[in-house]
Amino acid sequence: MTPATDWRAELVEIDRSECLRRLGAHAVGRLGIVVHEQPLVFPVNYALDDETVVFRTDPGTKLHGATRGRRVAFEIDGIDPLYHEGWSVLVVGTAEEVSDPHERHQLAHLPLALWGAGPKAHWVRIRPDAITGRRLVHRSD
Amino acid sequence: MTPATDWRAELVEIDRSECLRRLGAHAVGRLGIVVHEQPLVFPVNYALDDETVVFRTDPGTKLHGATRGRRVAFEIDGIDPLYHEGWSVLVVGTAEEVSDPHERHQLAHLPLALWGAGPKAHWVRIRPDAITGRRLVHRSD
Repeated sequence: MTPATDWRAELVEIDRSECLRRLGAHAVGRLGIVVHEQPLVFPVNYALDDETVVFRTDPGTKLHGATRGRRVAFEIDGIDPLYHEGWSVLVVGTAEEVSDPHERHQLAHLPLALWGAGPKAHWVRIRPDAITGRRLVHRSD
Repeated sequence: MTPATDWRAELVEIDRSECLRRLGAHAVGRLGIVVHEQPLVFPVNYALDDETVVFRTDPGTKLHGATRGRRVAFEIDGIDPLYHEGWSVLVVGTAEEVSDPHERHQLAHLPLALWGAGPKAHWVRIRPDAITGRRLVHRSD
């Protein structure tokens, strides 16, 4: 018997507005794509633009798997391994490259830092179909 | 021009043995699955068993998407948003539920904590086809 199995815990839904607040307050998430029927997960730094997720990338797997209206997932979380607490927000939607010069100019003002290693000249926008979140709550009763 | 664009950084491959060491040293990762052609990403706590990734779950989306030989991704990372440094390890492979009682008994000895909210009676094992990793290195030259 491990102590953890005795903890009283339950998953509680995070409503959409709070999901968006958390998306706006974070800078790194994980992108889930499918390439040749193989799911892949990559960390990306991102910014929230209105209710869409925007990131920059170079030509490669991420750009291939997250453009042209392809279905993607984007996840952020806050996990505390010590106390076994945590929350996660999942965005599911479609991804497209931003090619319009005016739109790219506007995106350039987002607080989106580049982490080096390549010019990352391609902007990708994820338009959510659904934004859901949940957190693990420990009950004291 | 943002300061980050001036940083000299490059992505360096992490070799397989170091990927496995990092997988063995962590406890939480992100599972990437595909359900009805929609990629999904969920945080899971896990343990490394030999060179396979093992986690427990309840009936639901994760179990549906990560059993019966379905292709999955499993990612861990260490990201420092302040210093724009980080690394990630990606496991791609197939997932199956562990149903053999002897095998389940052996898995029960793994250091795999349960985070509450459901009995998580189903064990899932991810058998890697490939384990790759990379880290962002800042050069001083």
